[in-house]
Amino acid sequence: MTEEKRKRNISEVNSLAYDDFIAIFGNVVEHCALCAAVVWGDRPFRNYGEMQSKFNEFIEQLPLSGKSGVLRLYPDLAGKLAQSNSLTSESTREHASAGLDKMTEEEREKMSKLNTKYREKFGFPFVICARENKKEAILFGLERRLNNSVEVEANTGTNEVKKICNLRLKDLVDEHSVAKL
Amino acid sequence: MTEEKRKRNISEVNSLAYDDFIAIFGNVVEHCALCAAVVWGDRPFRNYGEMQSKFNEFIEQLPLSGKSGVLRLYPDLAGKLAQSNSLTSESTREHASAGLDKMTEEEREKMSKLNTKYREKFGFPFVICARENKKEAILFGLERRLNNSVEVEANTGTNEVKKICNLRLKDLVDEHSVAKL
Repeated sequence: MTEEKRKRNISEVNSLAYDDFIAIFGNVVEHCALCAAVVWGDRPFRNYGEMQSKFNEFIEQLPLSGKSGVLRLYPDLAGKLAQSNSLTSESTREHASAGLDKMTEEEREKMSKLNTKYREKFGFPFVICARENKKEAILFGLERRLNNSVEVEANTGTNEVKKICNLRLKDLVDEHSVAKL
Repeated sequence: MTEEKRKRNISEVNSLAYDDFIAIFGNVVEHCALCAAVVWGDRPFRNYGEMQSKFNEFIEQLPLSGKSGVLRLYPDLAGKLAQSNSLTSESTREHASAGLDKMTEEEREKMSKLNTKYREKFGFPFVICARENKKEAILFGLERRLNNSVEVEANTGTNEVKKICNLRLKDLVDEHSVAKL
């Protein structure tokens, strides 16, 4: 395991310099280093939960336009970027865990049509925590969520962003460690 | 001039696909593609001013923690990244226009000490619009602004971010063009 992939305990996290913090946590919210840059200001964290909640807090307090912007930073599921192997390493692993890299031609076409419909209606892509769902459930959810309002979907998508962020953070930080502050 | 560097009129900007919009405007706020992702949702723009004001609006409505995060995404002036040629192309040009690439050893040392002091006090780097200042004025401003409170500096820095954003946008968009909507 490389240095970057090793799980850190929360005391180690607290002692990271800003540049290292961003290098490690800059993509726990996809392409949104601002989130990690904000949370860096909340150190020291007593434990994993406190760190995680700071990411959630920042995302939640964004206005609707900001939440929509965060969602736009995510790739389409099984979309163009996935097909050209241009996803971030985090997204690549997450897509694979849901079986999105092993879809039939029919499933891929259905997903692509629904993704386009979703983007056209809401102005941001469909975001769902792929590690908590399989491709069948994702296709079902995509179809179902198309009926919601923009406000509902911005919030539903944001909640999925928080779930994805939580799982990415758990890959990087020992969630049982406690800091002596 | 490459396609990416050509100034677009506002109608061309309005018709850009999301991915192209981000490729072009993703760094008008340094390392903060979220800003462009948010502003994309506000198209179509009637003119340059409307587009610019959408960037300002998003930055202004961020809480203090968010503004501090935005500031952290900026590099130190004449700092480590500048010395290792690791700045974004925008920052490289801006530093040069202020003469920050032609400092004496003494000036560089002074700047480095003041930058460190500033970061330690405020938790974010000193940000100033380098294209509107020369190195002497920057050193003077850095020393003077060290006396402010965190709240004052987060707002002063944010105003400088808006100035930098405005000048970067003007490099990319014809500010006199008007869209027929």
